Amino acid sequence: MDANEFRRLGHALVDWIAEYRERKMPALPVMSQVKPGEIRARFPAEPPARGGGAAAALAAVDRDVLPGVTHWNHPSFFAYFPSNTSYASILGDLLSSGLGAQGMSWATSPAATEIEEVVMGWLRQMIGLSPAWSGVVQDTASTATLTALVCARERKSGFAQSHAGLQCREAPLVVYASDQAHSSIEKDACLAGFGKDHLRLLATDDAHALRLDLLEEAIRRDLAAGLRPCALVAATGTTATTALDPVAGMADLAGRYGLWLHVDAALAGTAMVLPECRWMWEGVERADSVVFNPHKWMGIGFDFSAYFVRDPQHLVRVMSTNPSYLRTAHDAEVRNLRDWGIPLGRRFRALKGWLHLVDEGVEAMQARIRRDLDNARWLAEQVDAAPGWERVAPVPLQLVCLRHGQAGARDEAAVNAHNLEIANRVNRSGRAYVTPSLLKGKQMIRISIGAEPTERRHVEALWAALREAAGED
Amino acid sequence: MDANEFRRLGHALVDWIAEYRERKMPALPVMSQVKPGEIRARFPAEPPARGGGAAAALAAVDRDVLPGVTHWNHPSFFAYFPSNTSYASILGDLLSSGLGAQGMSWATSPAATEIEEVVMGWLRQMIGLSPAWSGVVQDTASTATLTALVCARERKSGFAQSHAGLQCREAPLVVYASDQAHSSIEKDACLAGFGKDHLRLLATDDAHALRLDLLEEAIRRDLAAGLRPCALVAATGTTATTALDPVAGMADLAGRYGLWLHVDAALAGTAMVLPECRWMWEGVERADSVVFNPHKWMGIGFDFSAYFVRDPQHLVRVMSTNPSYLRTAHDAEVRNLRDWGIPLGRRFRALKGWLHLVDEGVEAMQARIRRDLDNARWLAEQVDAAPGWERVAPVPLQLVCLRHGQAGARDEAAVNAHNLEIANRVNRSGRAYVTPSLLKGKQMIRISIGAEPTERRHVEALWAALREAAGED
Repeated sequence: MDANEFRRLGHALVDWIAEYRERKMPALPVMSQVKPGEIRARFPAEPPARGGGAAAALAAVDRDVLPGVTHWNHPSFFAYFPSNTSYASILGDLLSSGLGAQGMSWATSPAATEIEEVVMGWLRQMIGLSPAWSGVVQDTASTATLTALVCARERKSGFAQSHAGLQCREAPLVVYASDQAHSSIEKDACLAGFGKDHLRLLATDDAHALRLDLLEEAIRRDLAAGLRPCALVAATGTTATTALDPVAGMADLAGRYGLWLHVDAALAGTAMVLPECRWMWEGVERADSVVFNPHKWMGIGFDFSAYFVRDPQHLVRVMSTNPSYLRTAHDAEVRNLRDWGIPLGRRFRALKGWLHLVDEGVEAMQARIRRDLDNARWLAEQVDAAPGWERVAPVPLQLVCLRHGQAGARDEAAVNAHNLEIANRVNRSGRAYVTPSLLKGKQMIRISIGAEPTERRHVEALWAALREAAGED
Repeated sequence: MDANEFRRLGHALVDWIAEYRERKMPALPVMSQVKPGEIRARFPAEPPARGGGAAAALAAVDRDVLPGVTHWNHPSFFAYFPSNTSYASILGDLLSSGLGAQGMSWATSPAATEIEEVVMGWLRQMIGLSPAWSGVVQDTASTATLTALVCARERKSGFAQSHAGLQCREAPLVVYASDQAHSSIEKDACLAGFGKDHLRLLATDDAHALRLDLLEEAIRRDLAAGLRPCALVAATGTTATTALDPVAGMADLAGRYGLWLHVDAALAGTAMVLPECRWMWEGVERADSVVFNPHKWMGIGFDFSAYFVRDPQHLVRVMSTNPSYLRTAHDAEVRNLRDWGIPLGRRFRALKGWLHLVDEGVEAMQARIRRDLDNARWLAEQVDAAPGWERVAPVPLQLVCLRHGQAGARDEAAVNAHNLEIANRVNRSGRAYVTPSLLKGKQMIRISIGAEPTERRHVEALWAALREAAGED
């Protein structure tokens, strides 16, 4: 492809994306309706011997790719989490691809490191963290939490990685979180070598938040058994219900017992752009690390996870490698962000954050987030007022967890099946996409509000679709 | 930003990228010449309260961003590794951003999973791996190798992660590689909890490749000491010199001692598209895992690392989590690629691979790779024929490692300083960008050939620049 073909196909693709978002998407089923294997079958099994096929490939996207796409930017996308990928962040990422620059070291493209420092400074201020924090972009909260647990492991073990690692035969290190913690906590604890036997997933209170009494009890029991409590993971907004763990109380315990405190605010971090929401993670300044995902509700395109630490030297000590082929003349004066995470190579992700933030601005973002909180409160009120419907968790943010038919005569298994069927019916209809989920054994329907184009009327339409699927209309 | 502004700014940005690549870049210094802090100072320290700034931001890229960019696609970029980011892959990634789809589960966008299966099947065939291998896209070789070491750890320990993890007080597990292995091997072994005491970085032969005699000796010594040999990492093309570890011999030892064999062909994997290069990793079919980076020499935009495993069920067993909010009706029939790596969220990276491959085609790619191999051989011949210059490693691929002034009267430290100065002089001149590096204590200059626009004349100009910097002209 030469520059002229790139211009021609690039213009057409930009137009296609605008057309997709503006006109096509609202008319498409939110959840892809294809069967397994249907998309794969549209592509040859063997690689193309001859080139020149880009124009034809792009022309076939509507036919071969789009039917297999679930539309995360659809106004009626209520599943998983809002992942908006604004127009501006699309352009920022296009610029990153066009430059093709590497941010592994400062010298490999100084702008990649320094604009990342700027954007992470903006994000830090936006969510109300003090200047004591330093930030870095990572791909996902899963990876950031793995990084946090490894750092916790190394701090507690006196940097055992430089000798026997976790195979040092000292007292085993233990990690604590609630049983509502994201699945990545368990995965990361396993990847970091702790083992499931050394992960305590504690029962939660009626609001599905971690119980401090059970946490301290577990810590004391482990100490009495000769184990070494190592790290606490607090969720500000759990995945299932946006429950709020008591960060301040956990920070007290972390201080008392010398533990690492990691705050997982993957989705809810965006709400901290609103000063009136910051009570939700009161105590966060005493944590060791915080992760939130601007690629969720904030609207920056995936993947852009913001990881903040109090002590970057600790992070660097754990992550740094310094082979001669990566040393440069400026190393003493600059940040080499390869030492702030697991991958060596680093895409110039700051550009999509930069462009998104200068395009939306903090005030408009605050208004958008307040709109979504209002919409969630509205839906919660409808559920509370509707006979036969039950709200199964508080609604501090943009997530409403509900359930139908609790009061009826049918047994629990039948109610569960009924609610799974409601969710599946809505999803199959293509009118909206919601997440069926289990909460402490009960089947519920999880409604996550916050796609950029989602207005009140879309939430009203969803509520109608749910009632219809429940057999009410 | 509305759809119309997106169209307008998008067209302008596509044109800017074409103009940057075609006209601006060749005239710019290859390595950014800014001082630390210079780019950061061009941006406000506080986040923008008001939005609407995208057009102005993009208009300021030439002034505020470009001076801080090191031009990885420049025809005279000879540093680190070729990282080409073709026009077609830029468009593929733009499509991915535009769709904004998530590939964490099959259901979250079936096309993301199935086109990844297609593209990974193409890549597998292109590098000559048998159908016994299954592939998945990861961000970098660092992450893929961490994944491999964790899988090795779990297989050897009987999946200890499900109980005591590495804290099980069984005999410590040991990892083996050469002292020329990439820095990520040490980092990954530390992250995975093995500890540096349980990593053997073995001395290499005169061609800088792993010595099988030392490897077997180390394994036996560890067994005798009551340790558990666990994993071998073979480099097909080391970072410093593209040395070729003896994969077949390592596979023999892996078989004999029950070890995991991981092949790191991050750069050299692309050369396997040439059948005449496949002797370089003879024995690869008996490895457990292989990683190569299509985002290097192959030309797909960063980040796109190809990780192949013989036994995906093993990978899934180590990586899988299955919380209720991620379960879907089709789970039994499909791949959920979140279980094939560390991050949960997954960008639709297959699109940039797909578009690159249909645009370049295998035959043109083979011709391009052969061109680069020819250019490296040409440079090696010049070095060999030039008095005062020394080639410090064999040239099986596109990397030439050289050094000036070896024969002179000056002491080793002075020769080292002289060669570092030659590299720095070339880099500061902006005419080319090379990597100064140490090889077994000797300062050398590492010339990596393979940017897409690099022709013979650019290598000739580099050779002239090197001789000039050495004080020869």
